[in-house]
Amino acid sequence: MYIILVYDIGEKRVGKMLKLCRRYLNWIQNSVFEGEITEVKLKQLLHSARLIMDEETDSLILFKSREQKWLEKEIIGQDKNDLDTFI
Amino acid sequence: MYIILVYDIGEKRVGKMLKLCRRYLNWIQNSVFEGEITEVKLKQLLHSARLIMDEETDSLILFKSREQKWLEKEIIGQDKNDLDTFI
Repeated sequence: MYIILVYDIGEKRVGKMLKLCRRYLNWIQNSVFEGEITEVKLKQLLHSARLIMDEETDSLILFKSREQKWLEKEIIGQDKNDLDTFI
Repeated sequence: MYIILVYDIGEKRVGKMLKLCRRYLNWIQNSVFEGEITEVKLKQLLHSARLIMDEETDSLILFKSREQKWLEKEIIGQDKNDLDTFI
């Protein structure tokens, strides 16, 4: 399936979360990731995310779509993902 | 159509952008919004967004879906949108 993942995580934990999400998904902006992922991999990702998160204050939102073609993406301004490849 | 909008905007401009997006969409987290919107309203929103943005540094990403049912949303941790209603 194709997912969009966005998080809002306390500063102390954000580095770990970024590293985790990058292992499974493509970073597209700030705290936003997207990508194709299997059910099993998604379970692994969410399990690890929960270990990092403070669920009292942090938040993670997933949008799941069975097929990427059902979602059209449009970028205005900087495509940060392009920059990312040079960092 | 149903859209998810995420932005990464310089601090000086972020207040204006938040206010603009809230006029058209539901705020769900940090710099993430979602909602049903018409083509015409979306054009208005993007026109206004471009006037606020510095397109050299800022970024706005839209995911458009013809129908919301094609996207399943899952929230882990805090549902900030709930808190939002009290602010």
